[in-house]
Amino acid sequence: MTDTLRERLAQSVRRLIDVTIRSEADEAAVAHALALVDQTVNLLSTRLMPGSFGVRTDSDGRTVVAGNVAIGLHNPIAPPLVVQQDTEGGVHADVHLGAGYEGPPGHVHGGMCALILDHVLGATAHQPNKPAYTGTITVRYLRPTRLGALRAEARVERIDGSKTYATGHLSNVDGVTVEAEGVFITPREHLGLGEPEPLSDTTR
Amino acid sequence: MTDTLRERLAQSVRRLIDVTIRSEADEAAVAHALALVDQTVNLLSTRLMPGSFGVRTDSDGRTVVAGNVAIGLHNPIAPPLVVQQDTEGGVHADVHLGAGYEGPPGHVHGGMCALILDHVLGATAHQPNKPAYTGTITVRYLRPTRLGALRAEARVERIDGSKTYATGHLSNVDGVTVEAEGVFITPREHLGLGEPEPLSDTTR
Repeated sequence: MTDTLRERLAQSVRRLIDVTIRSEADEAAVAHALALVDQTVNLLSTRLMPGSFGVRTDSDGRTVVAGNVAIGLHNPIAPPLVVQQDTEGGVHADVHLGAGYEGPPGHVHGGMCALILDHVLGATAHQPNKPAYTGTITVRYLRPTRLGALRAEARVERIDGSKTYATGHLSNVDGVTVEAEGVFITPREHLGLGEPEPLSDTTR
Repeated sequence: MTDTLRERLAQSVRRLIDVTIRSEADEAAVAHALALVDQTVNLLSTRLMPGSFGVRTDSDGRTVVAGNVAIGLHNPIAPPLVVQQDTEGGVHADVHLGAGYEGPPGHVHGGMCALILDHVLGATAHQPNKPAYTGTITVRYLRPTRLGALRAEARVERIDGSKTYATGHLSNVDGVTVEAEGVFITPREHLGLGEPEPLSDTTR
């Protein structure tokens, strides 16, 4: 099984989510679509992992978080975010959010903005074998965020022991739409005081 | 076209999301699944609404937000949340979050917790024909939230002109896992100073 085939399946299911919401096809077509989806579910369900995807290790020993709701390449809910490390120590992610992420008509749900900012701010605190978890995050909505192309950016403001203080924002052609600041906690055992666990730097 | 058929389609696509992540079926089965999904996308795409679902009016004159990422009955990403108004003025929603909402292994992504709390806190501020939008929300993570059954609760703390101050939390068998407080803004034109727009009380 190549990852690529499963990634392509997730990509197709992402398109299916979009057209499930937006279809104005007639009742016969929707009934046919329903039967095809149920057939697909049965086909894929012949062997299921127990529980969720979690963190796995690929054949090259790399950690894989393909089920993650923000970045998982096998998770059709994930846009997916692709977080880039910037040379100056920040991170950013360019993402396109369509009909599936709607809150107010034509706009991204405020909670979805919070999800993306939580992930991207947290990504500043993560390092290989040193996961960090959100302690507190505050999200300020400056203006509505239209569905479409967005950039999320974040950087570390300061580090105090186990706490990383990060800030960031979402922006689009309208400018900055949502700001956030958060505190991310690195568990004590990952501060050089214990054995590092084989967790990905992008697992939250 | 009955809503029920489209709701059933969204329910089946929700199951498809779950098994897309969790399937360990062989490569031939995944390739077949991919072909079936692409066929379904084509079938539903014969007629698509432009843009997103937005807010529509059903044949009984009720507003429908079926595309909403938190509560939309036609949106396979939505769990969907079903927000209940409590007699004492609060709101709550019971929800089950499975593999599709994962962050840390076996746990709900912190950003997904924020999304749900944003929606449920905001629901305290919404009234028919009087929408409210998130101004600021602060989310505090007390402990990891395991995937599974959850309750989200919120209530209004006070109202000051256009601002509604709300608090709430997520809880499960482990107790309260995440707390939030937020300020929700009712636009001036909905404060009795202008014409109410035909927006749903659950649109964000």
